[in-house]
Amino acid sequence: MDKESVKVIPLGGLGEIGKNITVIEYEDEIIIIDCGISFPDEDMYGVDLVIPDIKYLLDKKEKIKGLFLTHGHEDHIGAIPYILKQINIPVYGTKLTLGLVENKLKEHRILDVSTIISVHTGDIIELDKIKVEFIKATHSIADSCSLAIYTPLGVILHTGDFKIDYTPIDGRLMDLGRIAQLGREGIMLLLADSTNVERQGHSLSEKVIGETLIKIFSNAKGRVIVATFASNIHRMQQIIDASVKYNRKVIFSGRSVENISQVAMELGYLHVPEETSIPIEEINQYPNENITIITTGSQGEAMAGLSRIAYGSHRNIFIERDDLFLISASPIPGNDKLVSRVINQLFRKGADVIYEDLEDVHVSGHAYQEELKLIHRLVHPKYFMPVHGEYRHLKHHSDLAKKLGMKPSDVFTLETGQVLEITGDGVNTNKRVHTGTVFVDGLGVGDVGNIVLRDRRDLAKYGMITIVVAIDRHSYSIVAGPDIITRGFVYVRESEELISKIKEVSRMEVEGCLENKNLEWQVLKTGVKKSVEHLVYNKTKRRPIVFPIIMEV
Amino acid sequence: MDKESVKVIPLGGLGEIGKNITVIEYEDEIIIIDCGISFPDEDMYGVDLVIPDIKYLLDKKEKIKGLFLTHGHEDHIGAIPYILKQINIPVYGTKLTLGLVENKLKEHRILDVSTIISVHTGDIIELDKIKVEFIKATHSIADSCSLAIYTPLGVILHTGDFKIDYTPIDGRLMDLGRIAQLGREGIMLLLADSTNVERQGHSLSEKVIGETLIKIFSNAKGRVIVATFASNIHRMQQIIDASVKYNRKVIFSGRSVENISQVAMELGYLHVPEETSIPIEEINQYPNENITIITTGSQGEAMAGLSRIAYGSHRNIFIERDDLFLISASPIPGNDKLVSRVINQLFRKGADVIYEDLEDVHVSGHAYQEELKLIHRLVHPKYFMPVHGEYRHLKHHSDLAKKLGMKPSDVFTLETGQVLEITGDGVNTNKRVHTGTVFVDGLGVGDVGNIVLRDRRDLAKYGMITIVVAIDRHSYSIVAGPDIITRGFVYVRESEELISKIKEVSRMEVEGCLENKNLEWQVLKTGVKKSVEHLVYNKTKRRPIVFPIIMEV
Repeated sequence: MDKESVKVIPLGGLGEIGKNITVIEYEDEIIIIDCGISFPDEDMYGVDLVIPDIKYLLDKKEKIKGLFLTHGHEDHIGAIPYILKQINIPVYGTKLTLGLVENKLKEHRILDVSTIISVHTGDIIELDKIKVEFIKATHSIADSCSLAIYTPLGVILHTGDFKIDYTPIDGRLMDLGRIAQLGREGIMLLLADSTNVERQGHSLSEKVIGETLIKIFSNAKGRVIVATFASNIHRMQQIIDASVKYNRKVIFSGRSVENISQVAMELGYLHVPEETSIPIEEINQYPNENITIITTGSQGEAMAGLSRIAYGSHRNIFIERDDLFLISASPIPGNDKLVSRVINQLFRKGADVIYEDLEDVHVSGHAYQEELKLIHRLVHPKYFMPVHGEYRHLKHHSDLAKKLGMKPSDVFTLETGQVLEITGDGVNTNKRVHTGTVFVDGLGVGDVGNIVLRDRRDLAKYGMITIVVAIDRHSYSIVAGPDIITRGFVYVRESEELISKIKEVSRMEVEGCLENKNLEWQVLKTGVKKSVEHLVYNKTKRRPIVFPIIMEV
Repeated sequence: MDKESVKVIPLGGLGEIGKNITVIEYEDEIIIIDCGISFPDEDMYGVDLVIPDIKYLLDKKEKIKGLFLTHGHEDHIGAIPYILKQINIPVYGTKLTLGLVENKLKEHRILDVSTIISVHTGDIIELDKIKVEFIKATHSIADSCSLAIYTPLGVILHTGDFKIDYTPIDGRLMDLGRIAQLGREGIMLLLADSTNVERQGHSLSEKVIGETLIKIFSNAKGRVIVATFASNIHRMQQIIDASVKYNRKVIFSGRSVENISQVAMELGYLHVPEETSIPIEEINQYPNENITIITTGSQGEAMAGLSRIAYGSHRNIFIERDDLFLISASPIPGNDKLVSRVINQLFRKGADVIYEDLEDVHVSGHAYQEELKLIHRLVHPKYFMPVHGEYRHLKHHSDLAKKLGMKPSDVFTLETGQVLEITGDGVNTNKRVHTGTVFVDGLGVGDVGNIVLRDRRDLAKYGMITIVVAIDRHSYSIVAGPDIITRGFVYVRESEELISKIKEVSRMEVEGCLENKNLEWQVLKTGVKKSVEHLVYNKTKRRPIVFPIIMEV
């Protein structure tokens, strides 16, 4: 018989950035913490989103008691519509988090969710044997939480994404008191955010941005256009406050900024004085020095607001003299070149641009080393497992815990798919469960996989050459072709000689087979493919994909 | 008649990173400064290198008196083989720079260069009316120079790439005295490196790295494996010095590290005590604590040494317990994710890794604000034009010059292709010359252009669907097909229904045309293409490239 045990199973988010989802199991009870997306790597051509593979959960549906959300960022809630299509379970979260989830479900036309349950921090959700408590945390989105999960074997504290901000914009402090109390009572396992473990010291308070904004707004002569993360309600609040102070109307521009600000206003998380917010259509009714625009595109995305403005393709906003752009965000890894391109273009058009390299217009939402140390000291858990980070972050977070005095045998650096199983006797980490990535491309979920991506990569690198020949299987003769079609290979007009060589080689190859009365398609095709690949590589040192198509008529 | 004038024409490097090449013309005399490559953007699929388009120079060949090199980095010398194939001109540079150029020419099997002329700093090359003086500069490669170009209208000072290092590894100081003297005598135009204009303060001396290395080497228990830029001879020297101090043999691993260290040793720029350097084959003859490996791959490149080691595909080097990896470089924009991936993999394999986020293992080779201010103050030119940077850097460098007191009308923020023409009366910047980018892909130079790249991008994003039909133009009937071939689109096995719909739609479209006795190929093809695109977009929201191929038999 199995011993009584608690399993913690990361189905995503450990050893990778994004798609955070953690499963906690005690006997026949399962809860899920968060369910996010990640964004495709640059070599995942054509992929729109990456969601976690939840096969592991599908044959345990009846055991799953709920999905518990720490906060409303995409990498924690983005995959909920996809999971709810397969598993209908209650979703627990604070008000703003659920507001953002509901917005998302509407877009996916999911209306018959069994239950969306709004909780307050301090609430304890009692399931059968597991209980979950929501605890106030501070992060770059309002209404964030840590979770205390009570199991019969002990308490698990999951920090969620957090920083320790002693002066949060909404005054809602991280509940360090409650965490300390739980720590004194005894915590079995700590799961803590590792994102910024490589940064020394303490992160700056969001409030710092407000001071920079006041300085910038006080000098701005024309419009101020701020690109930021749409979900950073506190950042938005500070932009609004600075605008009000300097007598500016505020325009929300771009789908996600409009949606999220709308949700946040309705739920009371964003406070915009009456008549401060104006629709974009009224932009010309006010002098430029009375206008602030909040828009998207702080990551250089081609289709987002800021980029459209920079390249002159925005419907309503055109660059004017004295425009001042603020990029109030840090480029996420991989996006720095895109962001830089947009900045260059704005400067070229004569605008002024302020960004992180020049001023304090962004602070991180994740705890630095000193903040992590505080949490470790308050919690002093029996076991520790770092979460939310690439492998290097998890490794350094484990090192940090050891430096703070934890026994190496009590610290577990695991990755997505590895199971942390706690029994009364100790911890076992040898089990693995099925995990993976599911690609969302257009309407397709999972119909693009690694083979399709490999083909896209090959096509991207060298293009392709299609060779079509029609043969008569009775007379063993070519009746049409070979015709050569290329895409992404070379300028055909400048490579006529090569193309006619390809034709010649293909014809010879087919004729050779026909002479031998060999009509094995596979042999024919392979022969043409090999000869053409060989020819092309010798002449160009390139390896386009060669498709021979033989038609029998 | 034209007035006497000096033209400064950037054919590359302004408003972009890389492919630095500047033309200076006085009457019928032309000189070229540098001739570099740039690396392809992430959306230039399959492109190996980008070189400047030098069409502008081709019909002026006989006027070109020489190519003058500031230093041996790829973005300043990498395109020389390509330009020398079209224009055979003397090449002037310091010893190490020319050593690296000759290495490159050998690889391109260019042996009949008219002249490669080695100069010493202090030398003045006298052409017909122009004179060029080489002046010592400090940078992240040895033997770097600034150039003073004497024209009948005045002196142009081109800083080249530089930083002001008061403690350079080779003791060869930047010749600030000579620059000051020229400044006192009067400089007409300053062209200065803008790369780090956004960084406040003063760059750190290369020597700082040496101190970090000593600290790291003194604690290392196993092998130390350092990935760095192969061209950074001074960095290499410091790694060798630390190795000698701690009784380690040094292995140079990887083509560029081997080549460049060889050239640098032969020319006396790199000093490796006898018996310190060992071939990689002898790696197992020494205990791990007596081994240092210098390798490539500090930018995360898939095929470079470090990445091969990380992923277990290196021929000679396998990760062992206590291995310590140093990444002694900063990821260049766009490479941070690649570098991070390699770091994660090294940690996973149990190695320790030290990189820029953790320790001072890299310093920049380009001047920060305070260094730039010093140069501006010493030179106090009549005119200033920032070079070597993206537009944002050029813009900020111009702002810096103005803050230092220059008249805005004497400062020129130009980009590649814009001509700065100086006459006795003043400056004209209205002229433009032809410039552009030439893509090198395998053996092809210029046979891949924007249309080919657009096709590659489209193929990469959605893949392609080929539809082949053979028709008999006499009986107006389909004799074979339609056959459907897809690549990079969907898993065919999971999308049988869609594929058969595509077949059906194609057949209907062709039969429709045949019924009407319409054999206009273009009409037929367009019909099939449109119908299939429509079908596929509706079903999947994707836009694969659709190639209809109609064969007549």
